Amino acid sequence: MKALRKVRPQSGAQLESIAIPTIGSTDVLVRVRAASICGTDLHIYGWDRWSASRIHLPMTFGHEFCGVIETVGDEVVSSKPGDFVSAEMHVNCGHCRPCRMGQPHVCQNLKIIGIDADGCFAEFVRIPARNIWKIDPAIPENYAAILDPLGNAVHTVTAGEIAGQNVLVTGAGPIGLMAIAVARACGCALLVATEVNPHRRELAKTMGADEALDPTQTGIVERVREMTDAGVDVLLEMSGSPQAIRQGFQMLRQGGRASLLGIPKDDVTLDLVNDVIFKGATVQGIYGRRMFETWVHMTELLKHNRLNLDPLFRERLPLEKFENAFSLLESGQAGKVLFYPNGSPK
Amino acid sequence: MKALRKVRPQSGAQLESIAIPTIGSTDVLVRVRAASICGTDLHIYGWDRWSASRIHLPMTFGHEFCGVIETVGDEVVSSKPGDFVSAEMHVNCGHCRPCRMGQPHVCQNLKIIGIDADGCFAEFVRIPARNIWKIDPAIPENYAAILDPLGNAVHTVTAGEIAGQNVLVTGAGPIGLMAIAVARACGCALLVATEVNPHRRELAKTMGADEALDPTQTGIVERVREMTDAGVDVLLEMSGSPQAIRQGFQMLRQGGRASLLGIPKDDVTLDLVNDVIFKGATVQGIYGRRMFETWVHMTELLKHNRLNLDPLFRERLPLEKFENAFSLLESGQAGKVLFYPNGSPK
Amino acid sequence: MKALRKVRPQSGAQLESIAIPTIGSTDVLVRVRAASICGTDLHIYGWDRWSASRIHLPMTFGHEFCGVIETVGDEVVSSKPGDFVSAEMHVNCGHCRPCRMGQPHVCQNLKIIGIDADGCFAEFVRIPARNIWKIDPAIPENYAAILDPLGNAVHTVTAGEIAGQNVLVTGAGPIGLMAIAVARACGCALLVATEVNPHRRELAKTMGADEALDPTQTGIVERVREMTDAGVDVLLEMSGSPQAIRQGFQMLRQGGRASLLGIPKDDVTLDLVNDVIFKGATVQGIYGRRMFETWVHMTELLKHNRLNLDPLFRERLPLEKFENAFSLLESGQAGKVLFYPNGSPK
Amino acid sequence: MKALRKVRPQSGAQLESIAIPTIGSTDVLVRVRAASICGTDLHIYGWDRWSASRIHLPMTFGHEFCGVIETVGDEVVSSKPGDFVSAEMHVNCGHCRPCRMGQPHVCQNLKIIGIDADGCFAEFVRIPARNIWKIDPAIPENYAAILDPLGNAVHTVTAGEIAGQNVLVTGAGPIGLMAIAVARACGCALLVATEVNPHRRELAKTMGADEALDPTQTGIVERVREMTDAGVDVLLEMSGSPQAIRQGFQMLRQGGRASLLGIPKDDVTLDLVNDVIFKGATVQGIYGRRMFETWVHMTELLKHNRLNLDPLFRERLPLEKFENAFSLLESGQAGKVLFYPNGSPK
Repeated sequence: MKALRKVRPQSGAQLESIAIPTIGSTDVLVRVRAASICGTDLHIYGWDRWSASRIHLPMTFGHEFCGVIETVGDEVVSSKPGDFVSAEMHVNCGHCRPCRMGQPHVCQNLKIIGIDADGCFAEFVRIPARNIWKIDPAIPENYAAILDPLGNAVHTVTAGEIAGQNVLVTGAGPIGLMAIAVARACGCALLVATEVNPHRRELAKTMGADEALDPTQTGIVERVREMTDAGVDVLLEMSGSPQAIRQGFQMLRQGGRASLLGIPKDDVTLDLVNDVIFKGATVQGIYGRRMFETWVHMTELLKHNRLNLDPLFRERLPLEKFENAFSLLESGQAGKVLFYPNGSPK
Repeated sequence: MKALRKVRPQSGAQLESIAIPTIGSTDVLVRVRAASICGTDLHIYGWDRWSASRIHLPMTFGHEFCGVIETVGDEVVSSKPGDFVSAEMHVNCGHCRPCRMGQPHVCQNLKIIGIDADGCFAEFVRIPARNIWKIDPAIPENYAAILDPLGNAVHTVTAGEIAGQNVLVTGAGPIGLMAIAVARACGCALLVATEVNPHRRELAKTMGADEALDPTQTGIVERVREMTDAGVDVLLEMSGSPQAIRQGFQMLRQGGRASLLGIPKDDVTLDLVNDVIFKGATVQGIYGRRMFETWVHMTELLKHNRLNLDPLFRERLPLEKFENAFSLLESGQAGKVLFYPNGSPK
Repeated sequence: MKALRKVRPQSGAQLESIAIPTIGSTDVLVRVRAASICGTDLHIYGWDRWSASRIHLPMTFGHEFCGVIETVGDEVVSSKPGDFVSAEMHVNCGHCRPCRMGQPHVCQNLKIIGIDADGCFAEFVRIPARNIWKIDPAIPENYAAILDPLGNAVHTVTAGEIAGQNVLVTGAGPIGLMAIAVARACGCALLVATEVNPHRRELAKTMGADEALDPTQTGIVERVREMTDAGVDVLLEMSGSPQAIRQGFQMLRQGGRASLLGIPKDDVTLDLVNDVIFKGATVQGIYGRRMFETWVHMTELLKHNRLNLDPLFRERLPLEKFENAFSLLESGQAGKVLFYPNGSPK
Repeated sequence: MKALRKVRPQSGAQLESIAIPTIGSTDVLVRVRAASICGTDLHIYGWDRWSASRIHLPMTFGHEFCGVIETVGDEVVSSKPGDFVSAEMHVNCGHCRPCRMGQPHVCQNLKIIGIDADGCFAEFVRIPARNIWKIDPAIPENYAAILDPLGNAVHTVTAGEIAGQNVLVTGAGPIGLMAIAVARACGCALLVATEVNPHRRELAKTMGADEALDPTQTGIVERVREMTDAGVDVLLEMSGSPQAIRQGFQMLRQGGRASLLGIPKDDVTLDLVNDVIFKGATVQGIYGRRMFETWVHMTELLKHNRLNLDPLFRERLPLEKFENAFSLLESGQAGKVLFYPNGSPK
């Protein structure tokens, strides 16, 4: 089969022909219909320090996808060939303390398919049956390919109360934009986004933000505090920028919630006393998706047509055009690019 | 001033001329703009057993309203004459255990204005300053008059997770209809209502229900269980009917939430083992409004235009036409009737 | 191997010699060290209506035990021969909505080992590897045999806030007595038990109750309301008696929590208006144990010596003496009776 | 009356004779029985930068105390002369968003008696009636004088699940030591303290810590991670030391809770990615005491004798010996020093 692989410890990737994966008794084999490129894939493609320290070569990358089950292992009863599915690509151990405490998404022994094992930029991918998520027929194929990042957004938004809350989203990349749509669908009150890129600010308003502000403008903290009752109730941090994190905390009201998903490159210096302790703030690290509460919430919102994600989609390409795909994304514009390893999109 | 009063221990009411209330140092006096009639007012008007046991005659009834502050007591700093306001009419003691535990809405010494003290079916009403709720200018006058029952609906819906949840509303009277709009605004998934009255079933769909079913139809429990994954996630019980309560529990999935607001006339016999214990259900008694979380949520939803309650409004009448008003409501059709004690509506 | 089995649809049981269970690739085989008799086993032994409707004959019963792993299936990595273990005997499907929502203990397709499959009143029992719970070496063997009912108690107590709460335990059978010890260990305030049996009332005080009252005494509701601020904060219902449930609700304060574990034989008639709705109570059906939060909590409490359960243990018998065991328990005295299918206790 | 006052913007204080405070209609006047010195009082006494920026001279300081009500304002019904009381010295506005959202402890307009208004290092102190807390007769006088800092400890410990949790307390000053006793009383599992001062480490064990470690030892992070399952469930940060905060986060397991009460002097640099975001941690800023949930919890724990705080008490002095008191505390030893402005201790 065709597979897009990292073979050498340097920038770039190879499209190779490799054997179709064999599956164990509790696995399924999925024929990939559409796969989407994540920011993490860009890091792997570019081969940054994190990639070099984590990834064992050679490997097939990619971890956002949908497809049709081709075969199932002997002991699999929950899925069958022909099922249209996606998958939770974080594979938890089931036995560590977080797993036993209802927090498998922060398992101490987590393996990620597409990072620690061969992923979905290929014609076929092997997935443990318990990680398979069957797609409701009401959900379009392109939406089904991006449930992984949409799940990040849903996890972040629903990590605390959202209905009737004034919300700040810092950073309007793909997950930030999805978070705007989700917060809006869940009945938030005022929804403000901050984002340096003007094109993404426009998209933020399209997705449902009441205001999309440039965080480098002077007086921006005061302006948001005036729009609300001395700060927003909820900060959804999607940028990973230390400045955005600090600014977001300044815009958070006393007693507010800050949910952090964006990944800063370095340590971050915080005014802990005023922004967290005296403020009585609750700060949540958000990682992955709740297994599988987030998947249920996400499915229901999509199935009942509460989310319009159409503005987020851009190019749809065959796997062969991977160089175009990555350079498009490296240009920094928001929007999801999809691969179709088994032929052209519908 | 004019006031609609219960004077005699029998059905009916008197429109009388009485002195304008005097206020204490921590009270405000409000000139009533619009007052709305609650189901409880119907009980008082009809003088049922509950009314006879609770109410001390003579008294002015009515507890849903909005108006403009006329004067404030010496120690009041949070309000001023001219403020457009409504009020939480449940006055808590502040010192009992529920009050001290963050649950003032179930205060052990609760007094209700309009039941235990003179209410708002009058030109003026006296309110403790801390119970005053200032109305956001974006909220229309008629909406401002019904924040008390809307708050019941918001309290019920937001008493647990609602986004992405399949919801059943049993009973589509005014508060049930409001709950439909609120659940919809807060991102619920499938929304089913059950209601015996066909006109109210139509209204339920207008307010946002996906399905409005007749609970007396055969096979109704099975049908709802089939539409969902073996039952709804959330039951919002708004009818007070023992049959509806039992049927609602049968339609609730394992591990679901049942929030009960409707008030049964008598004891209710439940299959506790199957419907609560083995089901691992959470059953919540809902009373009044959280002070003042519910008021904040409600205000934000209205201010950001998340709720269309227009279909709920019916007649707008001067206080003099109280007999028409009560007979209209006794006819059993849903919809809020408003009094204008100080002159005709805008 | 020896196994205590139900063979005929009538009262009693047979000690038979049957084949040692074969195991699948994800199962383990456990050599039973000690097994404990549950109230449910009494129902099966006596063959009541519930047993007749649920159980397929012939079968080996018993679901409370500890033992040593004898062999493990090919794909099992989390356990190994020689491990001293107990097990969660409720086997969930992993795919229904409660399973996907973090509530596997109320799985819609739950199977119980010892009820729906051969249980632990035998020399060996087969268990799915993911249901195995490894016993901390600090935990004594007899305690390890009763983690199933202890887990019921821990689940009930920790289903809401307990530290600093005034608590009422209705019913001082084994699980009620365990709940007293657990609530005490978790920092509850006043702890009152009600129980008709004077011997059990004594045990309740031994386990840590401040007061153990006879619920049939006149004025008991008023007395508990006087001891507290108009009612307890938390009701832990362990009796299944309709009178106890109603009395418990009357003793619950406004805004309190009622956690129901005891199983009434019939429907229960409640004053829903005063005891739940106007009271703003939260009522929780408690079933099984949280998988596996409850097991973690329970293990930590035992490991750190926070629970003294010694007063709960009574006879230790070989499997052959099953008739003595069951008649001892039918006599109604509290206390756990243990079987030792593989030889005498240490 | 006698009062210990800051008069000049420099180190030190004056014992002066001033008028007894007059009270408003909703206030009470309390004759101070015992007052305790807080770390904040040391800052005011030493006149650091924070004091200079916040405090308006002249003023009477002190905010931890108990006493007997002398007189009450005209509208006060909840208290009467002769009541033995303490008080919540944080006075909230009642109208800002946190106040309306059930978070008055982080009111946006908070005033603190003893910082923003005359405090309790005096024969009498004026308190708003709604901030008065009546002392249960079972609580000893010296305990009643330190409910303010004990409340900080109870608030921190009970801000999340504690029963069955492995806990790390970083910093064993007075509030850290109290937190150890509280966590122990509430059923925590392993309880580890870190503290640089060897005397305080001894006290930590006296108060109930299983281990009291020197955080400057090499390998300390690994040691705590080995004692637990890859980290503690709960971090209670009581030191305000940036090193302790970072070390505490390293010792926190995936998915754990970090509750921060200690006040760092400067900004703190954190490894947000590994210690919060990928860890899925919940970080809580803790300020003051929940009004009045914390007071209820604390009262119940004391009343039912769940906390032995005797080891924390040191000198008991007349107000005149204030210089001895402050130099004793500046020496850095843990322990509460009490003033008796109205005569010698019982």
